[in-house]
Amino acid sequence: MKLPVIVESLSSVDSYCDSWRLAVETNNAVKWKVVPSKCVSYLETYYSKGQFDKDYSLVASYALAFAKTVKMGGDGKDAWVFDVDETLLSNLEYYKTHIYGAEPFNSKEFSEWVVQGTTPGYDASLKLYEDLKKLGFTIILLTGRDEAQRSVTEKNLKDAGYSGWDQLLLRGQEDQGKAATEYKSEQRSRMVKKGFKLHGNTGDQWSDLQGFAVADRSFKVPNPLYYIA
Amino acid sequence: MKLPVIVESLSSVDSYCDSWRLAVETNNAVKWKVVPSKCVSYLETYYSKGQFDKDYSLVASYALAFAKTVKMGGDGKDAWVFDVDETLLSNLEYYKTHIYGAEPFNSKEFSEWVVQGTTPGYDASLKLYEDLKKLGFTIILLTGRDEAQRSVTEKNLKDAGYSGWDQLLLRGQEDQGKAATEYKSEQRSRMVKKGFKLHGNTGDQWSDLQGFAVADRSFKVPNPLYYIA
Repeated sequence: MKLPVIVESLSSVDSYCDSWRLAVETNNAVKWKVVPSKCVSYLETYYSKGQFDKDYSLVASYALAFAKTVKMGGDGKDAWVFDVDETLLSNLEYYKTHIYGAEPFNSKEFSEWVVQGTTPGYDASLKLYEDLKKLGFTIILLTGRDEAQRSVTEKNLKDAGYSGWDQLLLRGQEDQGKAATEYKSEQRSRMVKKGFKLHGNTGDQWSDLQGFAVADRSFKVPNPLYYIA
Repeated sequence: MKLPVIVESLSSVDSYCDSWRLAVETNNAVKWKVVPSKCVSYLETYYSKGQFDKDYSLVASYALAFAKTVKMGGDGKDAWVFDVDETLLSNLEYYKTHIYGAEPFNSKEFSEWVVQGTTPGYDASLKLYEDLKKLGFTIILLTGRDEAQRSVTEKNLKDAGYSGWDQLLLRGQEDQGKAATEYKSEQRSRMVKKGFKLHGNTGDQWSDLQGFAVADRSFKVPNPLYYIA
């Protein structure tokens, strides 16, 4: 790998981390494990100074613009799929205490965090969610969270300001051990078989958006904190 | 620490253009036509100060890392697909005289530019191309350029430092009017039927990488100058 050269105001570390974040968001970084330690303070700035929020808002505005072009059937089958974590609910407070993703994922600690059920929404996703409902879309929530976390997840979503979804799909017994792309594709496929038209899909992981039974349009929400295969 | 200072110095225009470029590179911006005029000087800086080159170099290093994990058959059928324009050859000089993509694409003027055949390669792509050849990959070049531009394209590629490709696939009579995704998928499908294993694909447009007969891994080269459906 070529070492970054210092250019004007951008430090060489920031310049590298800019390239790294782009590679992550475009899915060029193959199965990455943790955030590079030299990019921790870059990410802290990315979130705290508002660039993340602007990035998400612009994605949401493209999603809404697309949604407005959809010819609605008016039969309740026009659906929009949302992932939950880092798409509707922000676990940033958790990651702030876990070096912004620069340490390996600890599923036990994250589960303990999830059951607290205090995770807030994003301004961008709360607005998009409401706007899609007003346009008449049926909302399908599709998460990698466990069926055992159903009630805490429902309560957390409502406390964060989300309501009126049609389905909340979580991992059941039969889904244990499946890769996210496979599990989510199978769930979407079931929805298609039920007659839903999956017009849009919003997720922070490429594994939320790829595979089969994909939506007509997929929108990748920014998330440089972790990667799920 | 220095990071907050750097972000505070980002103007609101640069901040918007950062979000816009991310939306473009992740394919969230739906069928965009031209670069926003307020992002012209942002893009000029992006190219002239080296960030583009760093972004491309990092993508190329991820591609090479993946290529090294491929189990080679040793029968000459292990292939890597490259797009040409903005993947192997840089038309930046053309776009500098066309407001960095902030004006609608002019196919007549671009064709006149192409036949001059003076387009240089990128350091990152020249290195990746050579490294893949050394690893034993068969190189397939797949471009939206016209069959009529075959000889000028061959000469330009050789002048830029590329050699030893196995195939150079251009648009024939039967491909006129086809969307890029369709045309490129059909061409890749023909290669698969010829027995090639498409391990990797490198392109600056999502339409280089999506559709059917996709490679095992696709690598999106940065290009915020234009969009091809």
